[in-house]
Amino acid sequence: MPQLRKDPVVGRWVIISRSRARRPGNFVDTSDREVEDTDRECLYCQIQKKHPQSGESSGDVRVVSSEVYGNHQDKKLHRSKHGLYDVIDGFGAHEIIIETTEHLTNMADLDMDQIRLVFETYASRMRELEKNEQFQYVLAYKDYGPTAGGARGAHTCSHVVATPVRPLRVKEKLIGAKNYYEKHKRCVYCDLIRQEIQSGERIIYETQHFVALTPFAARLLFEMWILPKEHHCDFPDGIKGKEDDLALMMKVLLTKLQQGLEDPAYNFVIQTAPFARRGPDAEKWQTIEQDYHWHIELMPRLTRVAGFEKGTGFYICSIPPENMAEYLREIEIDDTITA
Amino acid sequence: MPQLRKDPVVGRWVIISRSRARRPGNFVDTSDREVEDTDRECLYCQIQKKHPQSGESSGDVRVVSSEVYGNHQDKKLHRSKHGLYDVIDGFGAHEIIIETTEHLTNMADLDMDQIRLVFETYASRMRELEKNEQFQYVLAYKDYGPTAGGARGAHTCSHVVATPVRPLRVKEKLIGAKNYYEKHKRCVYCDLIRQEIQSGERIIYETQHFVALTPFAARLLFEMWILPKEHHCDFPDGIKGKEDDLALMMKVLLTKLQQGLEDPAYNFVIQTAPFARRGPDAEKWQTIEQDYHWHIELMPRLTRVAGFEKGTGFYICSIPPENMAEYLREIEIDDTITA
Repeated sequence: MPQLRKDPVVGRWVIISRSRARRPGNFVDTSDREVEDTDRECLYCQIQKKHPQSGESSGDVRVVSSEVYGNHQDKKLHRSKHGLYDVIDGFGAHEIIIETTEHLTNMADLDMDQIRLVFETYASRMRELEKNEQFQYVLAYKDYGPTAGGARGAHTCSHVVATPVRPLRVKEKLIGAKNYYEKHKRCVYCDLIRQEIQSGERIIYETQHFVALTPFAARLLFEMWILPKEHHCDFPDGIKGKEDDLALMMKVLLTKLQQGLEDPAYNFVIQTAPFARRGPDAEKWQTIEQDYHWHIELMPRLTRVAGFEKGTGFYICSIPPENMAEYLREIEIDDTITA
Repeated sequence: MPQLRKDPVVGRWVIISRSRARRPGNFVDTSDREVEDTDRECLYCQIQKKHPQSGESSGDVRVVSSEVYGNHQDKKLHRSKHGLYDVIDGFGAHEIIIETTEHLTNMADLDMDQIRLVFETYASRMRELEKNEQFQYVLAYKDYGPTAGGARGAHTCSHVVATPVRPLRVKEKLIGAKNYYEKHKRCVYCDLIRQEIQSGERIIYETQHFVALTPFAARLLFEMWILPKEHHCDFPDGIKGKEDDLALMMKVLLTKLQQGLEDPAYNFVIQTAPFARRGPDAEKWQTIEQDYHWHIELMPRLTRVAGFEKGTGFYICSIPPENMAEYLREIEIDDTITA
């Protein structure tokens, strides 16, 4: 069973997986040197064919448990201390969302109905995982392309992972949003959206319910944030009635990336509020509800993170976000794909 | 001039560089597709030949100011606010340390005297940059190989960067170390070293003054920390009299990486205390001196960081650190290289 370990200085949690082979030679990454093996059949195509009824599915979207981390939802998490160090045995749940029956590799190539179905699947799995009282957070995310941690030429899929602790990056945002709210009695993201729409210089695309922009302090080239215009802290509840609009937004942005920036690798992550409606944090829920604002971060992987970023947490961005937004706005995509 | 921008939620600073070409097409990373151009002469070989007297130099080590970020040490930093957003115009200093006159690419191939000279150069540049009252922190680091942000086949060099703000990652460590000290009246790193040497299972190599280990909650495959056994918060003062010993440690670890793990890309970063002996933080210096412990993080880049890590700040490590340490201990290197 995998183990969670906490860094004793900064409080960062790490998952130590013991389920893979232990010989280090197996872990040297040679993906850049490999020629794509087009004869080997895609694992997810095989799953769809051999087990058409297995797993939870919604239309053409299939949900399967990851074999790497397993699904330890039924086990009781065991917390222990080894001198300085905190450990949790067990991990949580890792589910793979196979986005379509067809062997397509980029979510940009799915039609809007299918993209809507994928986002609805994230929402329903999040709601389901929230029922397990051992979990404190759930993340839905996608890795496309080897540079972004995805497999080369892989069937388009995404991930839903539930964790028994609240991750550091999530805590940072919650604390920042809370401090802002306490000072101004307003949501920092609502203020940010208002200021950005007014200036317009970093806006990439707008739909009825969502706005996409390059953040003022972008970490990465062509980093994009997708924010719901209406305040809501929670993704599954927040998208209700707005599913088609979100699918349109994602289709437009992913197509712009694919067509305007030479089909780059990318990650996206859904940043929703932690599970806090019940348990020890129940009394905090009202606070989180008012100061946090769910959103999606879409991160193309055009450059590599180097020692400077690793050492400082500072990022270097070599194009001003205003120029990135202008470039992304100007990429013309075929109207029929969103018709 | 470059600009610093602060994320309004988490407080992370980003450097927005306006000095490079603005067309986004220029920034698509094609380094993996490029064949190495062996006919093109190395930039640093050219600098050494054409300007043998320019720049600050120490023996065969040469220090040059980066043309990308420039050297704006003499300019007054200008701070401003744009609605929600904080901005600093100007950036600091970025110096490139050309480690040898010979065209070698990996620091592992330098002899120990030369490695000692490089680390002494970091120390002297840090002390010099500290004199500028506008700077709050200085980072010395290295990027080797394209996956780690280094140029393919580049002359071995490293970087010293001074920043006018205290970076988030540094703050996290200072806060963690301070909290531990307040609770236990002991340095967290000193306790960690004691516990690790006692158990021995994560120790890679030990010299008279330093210990190298895989951290209990390692983020990356074969991540290594090099810690001075004697408590000291500051790198330039802390290495005094231990320069040869540190050079031996670095030579051994870098050679083990090169020979035992197929010459992987790597970064290392020196994590020293911020400049706090003077200015508004002067009264805090005594606290930092007692609770912080300088160290080096050495990070091979064997796997890629994916959406899960980006979204949570959680890392997944697929080999237990005890097994990594065992593997690294067992890599035999030629005794003559450290003779």
